[in-house]
Amino acid sequence: MIHRLEIATSSRAQMVDVTREVQRAVSESGVQEGFCHIYVPHTTAGIAINENADPSVAQDILAVLEKIAPRGGSYRHLEGNADSHIKASIVGSSETVLIEGGKLVLGTWQGLFLCEFDGPRRRRLLVKVVEAA
Amino acid sequence: MIHRLEIATSSRAQMVDVTREVQRAVSESGVQEGFCHIYVPHTTAGIAINENADPSVAQDILAVLEKIAPRGGSYRHLEGNADSHIKASIVGSSETVLIEGGKLVLGTWQGLFLCEFDGPRRRRLLVKVVEAA
Amino acid sequence: MIHRLEIATSSRAQMVDVTREVQRAVSESGVQEGFCHIYVPHTTAGIAINENADPSVAQDILAVLEKIAPRGGSYRHLEGNADSHIKASIVGSSETVLIEGGKLVLGTWQGLFLCEFDGPRRRRLLVKVVEAA
Repeated sequence: MIHRLEIATSSRAQMVDVTREVQRAVSESGVQEGFCHIYVPHTTAGIAINENADPSVAQDILAVLEKIAPRGGSYRHLEGNADSHIKASIVGSSETVLIEGGKLVLGTWQGLFLCEFDGPRRRRLLVKVVEAA
Repeated sequence: MIHRLEIATSSRAQMVDVTREVQRAVSESGVQEGFCHIYVPHTTAGIAINENADPSVAQDILAVLEKIAPRGGSYRHLEGNADSHIKASIVGSSETVLIEGGKLVLGTWQGLFLCEFDGPRRRRLLVKVVEAA
Repeated sequence: MIHRLEIATSSRAQMVDVTREVQRAVSESGVQEGFCHIYVPHTTAGIAINENADPSVAQDILAVLEKIAPRGGSYRHLEGNADSHIKASIVGSSETVLIEGGKLVLGTWQGLFLCEFDGPRRRRLLVKVVEAA
């Protein structure tokens, strides 16, 4: 079974903390020990793990990605979102997080972020929870 | 069981769409629900998920990676492919894709790409298909 | 069961080869066929797979990451390690490696590296070994 979540983003580039939504899918599955795979089925959005205590960390990450692939740069792909595809490729489409005692095993400062690079939009997030001793 | 695919690349830097080959391994496995892990056992090639409708997206990704780590840059590793190692590290060695009804669960525009950074060569791609309700 | 390893790093930015430690966890698990998920529960460290024969490859990777996100750059996050968070996000928090005959399936030149971006510190590495035919 795949849990399909829907996440609304509110600006063109944004990191949305989805830790709570993913934990809810894990809780619903009833799995106590195992892992969970989180997948973004989009080509201009990605998923990343980083600090969720200070929101400026996410802003710094977005700023460096913008420097690597600026929105107004010259690209071959002519739909105005070539930079979004590149940023999504660097960040990646998926993450795998371990589960122990029914909880996502994240570091003290870690959170899961949907990375929007061509918003605002409604995005889907696929979560597969797998039991494994 | 690990499926071992062989992929021939035709230029130094290239993104080769391998979605069909990976789907074939999934179909051969007979697995209906689960996930599949795709692994590149090379240090100058990687694997990425991005748009496979417009080939210019792949060219833009390669162009930005070339800007980050130019082929003729000054590096310590003296085999002429230091940039290839760096590009492979940024893109990553593996991807995990979910399986539903015997099919890879990819977004409408997503494809799986072997990223060649030191070709042309024959590359191996390892695919492990895992059943999971 | 999750294997918890502790790795000491000795400088601010460093790639520490942890292949042997991860293989030991796989051997202890007794799993012959399957895969192993390696996870870094920190926001200023990551994990990467690349060449472990010539140490200059790791130095080149660190140098390019430093160019992308320089230590003394101007960032919003004011703890002096904004660059470390960004580098960790680019490299990623986890890797999945296949297991065959009780051994990690790595390419001839591949090794697993804990990537330290805000050391020296004691870092934890979580390893989950999963059996799968």
